[in-house]
Amino acid sequence: MDIAAYLAARTKLVDRALERYLPKESVKPVTIHKAMRYSIFAGGKRLRPVLTLASAEACGGKVDTAMAAACAVECIHTYSLIHDDLPCMDDDDLRRGRPTSHKVFGEGVAVLAGDALLTVAFEILAKASPTKRYGTAAQISELAHAAGSRWLVGGQVADLEGEGRKLSGAELQYIHRCKTAALLTASIRLGAMSANATDAQLKALTTFGQSVGLAFQIIDDILDVTQSSEKLGKTAGKDVSSQKATYPSIYGMEKSRKEARRLTAAAHRSLGVFGGKGADLRALADFLLAREY
Amino acid sequence: MDIAAYLAARTKLVDRALERYLPKESVKPVTIHKAMRYSIFAGGKRLRPVLTLASAEACGGKVDTAMAAACAVECIHTYSLIHDDLPCMDDDDLRRGRPTSHKVFGEGVAVLAGDALLTVAFEILAKASPTKRYGTAAQISELAHAAGSRWLVGGQVADLEGEGRKLSGAELQYIHRCKTAALLTASIRLGAMSANATDAQLKALTTFGQSVGLAFQIIDDILDVTQSSEKLGKTAGKDVSSQKATYPSIYGMEKSRKEARRLTAAAHRSLGVFGGKGADLRALADFLLAREY
Repeated sequence: MDIAAYLAARTKLVDRALERYLPKESVKPVTIHKAMRYSIFAGGKRLRPVLTLASAEACGGKVDTAMAAACAVECIHTYSLIHDDLPCMDDDDLRRGRPTSHKVFGEGVAVLAGDALLTVAFEILAKASPTKRYGTAAQISELAHAAGSRWLVGGQVADLEGEGRKLSGAELQYIHRCKTAALLTASIRLGAMSANATDAQLKALTTFGQSVGLAFQIIDDILDVTQSSEKLGKTAGKDVSSQKATYPSIYGMEKSRKEARRLTAAAHRSLGVFGGKGADLRALADFLLAREY
Repeated sequence: MDIAAYLAARTKLVDRALERYLPKESVKPVTIHKAMRYSIFAGGKRLRPVLTLASAEACGGKVDTAMAAACAVECIHTYSLIHDDLPCMDDDDLRRGRPTSHKVFGEGVAVLAGDALLTVAFEILAKASPTKRYGTAAQISELAHAAGSRWLVGGQVADLEGEGRKLSGAELQYIHRCKTAALLTASIRLGAMSANATDAQLKALTTFGQSVGLAFQIIDDILDVTQSSEKLGKTAGKDVSSQKATYPSIYGMEKSRKEARRLTAAAHRSLGVFGGKGADLRALADFLLAREY
């Protein structure tokens, strides 16, 4: 499989669906819809929604049926970036290669654009079809739980509280699991749910998501050190300058790479139950490990 | 009916349910759960959830069945207060008689506490039972739509954009409908949905909610001028000092009171279909009109 072509094709499908799901810029009040769309259509890699779609297909489901969940997940991810970039959080000026939302629209509208994207995620997911095993309530719970105070939001709180403090490896792993792995795992699980996955399939994909999610964040930590802001589309070297604990800062570069490889191998193994149908997910795990931005 | 006793009893039920639905303070990370509970259990009047319960009962439903929706609505309302009070929005130090969230926990955690309450609202609502006419998806859509970019969030954007500018009566009414009436109407409609309301009942309660919601905000505008901060539990006189357009500033005090009375009368009329079963809702509308804080 040509992973670049695959990703480009999937990204296009996701973008087209987001275009349909989000209110047009002309809807009143115009400012909020401009701000929502500014951040959503900023050239994000769409990794989470692509994982949702691939997970659905691995379980024998269809891309169309998984699309509402895929878009909901992307809205949650984008909201979290807008709020994380605020001056009262990580205070970042650059995201996805463009000025951050608060730089363009001001802090008030940026907070509200995040709020609106978080809210619309549930409006979109409510449009997903219930399946025999997973009703609408189960799908909504899945997303709300992963995005809520114990996981996504909780991870950002732990991250804020850890700033300028020396963290243990266990503390850092906790933050990474909350901030990154939980939503990534939910993205994959929601794809499986849309395809009415069996218990065994859902369990395997949960393990896959947890491994890939942690590997993803380790690579993120590494790229922050090794890549340029231009390549990343966000401020590089930020972790070092803000004295943030990262995998490389705690374990060193070589051990960090090794751990990312170990987790990716574990992710591969968890897909055994899918046989040939797991090929896309395997390729995506390899891509996430090898990515340069 | 002794409205004070009725409200006190209902508030107690809502508080007890919120206590069950929200993660304990001891759940990790502790800070976020402390911050969520600090704002939720700050002695709010619980008007929206009480309206949800009363609406359910008017349609022949039960308080218990409507409780998830009632609590979800209160979480949304509280999140909107936390974010509205932020320095980048209305910059307020006092809310429900206590220092605002960002004054106690800092801006970063306050943003996240709002995010977490917004998210948990959908997790709670997902626990509501679907009824024959209104599935989980319909109930989630109802709340997400009212809380989203067109209504609650949209109203706050329009409010921010109107600051320091002379607004027309129509512009002010638009903001009030978005910021206040939409969520209040959704609170009432969700109660009706939990009771499997007929089309006629839902339609009547929608009119009721829109009228009461606008009257509620007009009274709020009036109280900001006439009452003390101590009585209101938030900074009084804020609208005048920040040159915010309000009903009294545009129409004068007497015309504003008259309009609130007219809307309350319209709310009463809309309840005709309920006969005696609309008594609690009528009493609540009168209470909202006559309230002093």
